[in-house]
Amino acid sequence: MSEGRDTMAETTRWFEDFAPGAVHDLGRRTMTRDEIVAFAADWDPQPMHLDEASGEASLLGGLAASGWHTACVLMRLFADNLLAGSASLGSPGIDSLKWLRPVRPDDTLALTMTVLDTRTSAKRPRLGLISARFDMTDAGGATALTMTCTLMMERRPTP
Amino acid sequence: MSEGRDTMAETTRWFEDFAPGAVHDLGRRTMTRDEIVAFAADWDPQPMHLDEASGEASLLGGLAASGWHTACVLMRLFADNLLAGSASLGSPGIDSLKWLRPVRPDDTLALTMTVLDTRTSAKRPRLGLISARFDMTDAGGATALTMTCTLMMERRPTP
Repeated sequence: MSEGRDTMAETTRWFEDFAPGAVHDLGRRTMTRDEIVAFAADWDPQPMHLDEASGEASLLGGLAASGWHTACVLMRLFADNLLAGSASLGSPGIDSLKWLRPVRPDDTLALTMTVLDTRTSAKRPRLGLISARFDMTDAGGATALTMTCTLMMERRPTP
Repeated sequence: MSEGRDTMAETTRWFEDFAPGAVHDLGRRTMTRDEIVAFAADWDPQPMHLDEASGEASLLGGLAASGWHTACVLMRLFADNLLAGSASLGSPGIDSLKWLRPVRPDDTLALTMTVLDTRTSAKRPRLGLISARFDMTDAGGATALTMTCTLMMERRPTP
């Protein structure tokens, strides 16, 4: 994988750098009405994501971002603030993802990643597996999205 | 919720229209290199999603779509081919999502939804809950993405 990562900045984070219980601050991003509507028009064109009146008439109680939009913001913050320069080998999937609150225009979402567990692969000694929980919280500290998934991370080369 | 849905076409699908074991064809979409790279640049700017050389050097073995891009294509097909005109009330989240194969430029993905189980809410008699599995398969019939989630759907009004 090193050739792949060498196209990025020098690798600064390896499997061994993720300790169970550690909480990583992955930054924040403010949602805008224009971005919420544009994302929904492309990927999730349900009325409650496209205009205020339909949002108010829906369970969401007002115009709210597609849950996939919130998840994509999570991915971008994760890529920019942790994966870049890491020995990441990707992820096989998501174990659980919950949308707990509507995300509104001008909401600022903060992302943290909590390391739940780490283990190395028996079959592939260079591969480490990290079980992590991601939490996106609004300015009031309420959780809007929580997700657990497994990350694959290369182990630090031994000199 | 009806006001919200009335901004769409007339409601033609209610909770009662989803039977356990039923498989719904939700259409297909061909991925393009330009869309794969543009989506990754916006939401998942990891090298293996942005250029061929980095893709070939990665576990993906070539330029491949972000898994979030494939998930967004699933959502768009679901919105266009099932949710529009339905009594959908959204979803609380994803129970499991697995990315099983890389998705390449020019791959055509077909989406099906299989109804696993249905139940009505004890607390909210107008609300039905549908457990469903979504499978995206490539032209060769191999599964690229599989996801299970719970859908909330309003029950058909009684005359």
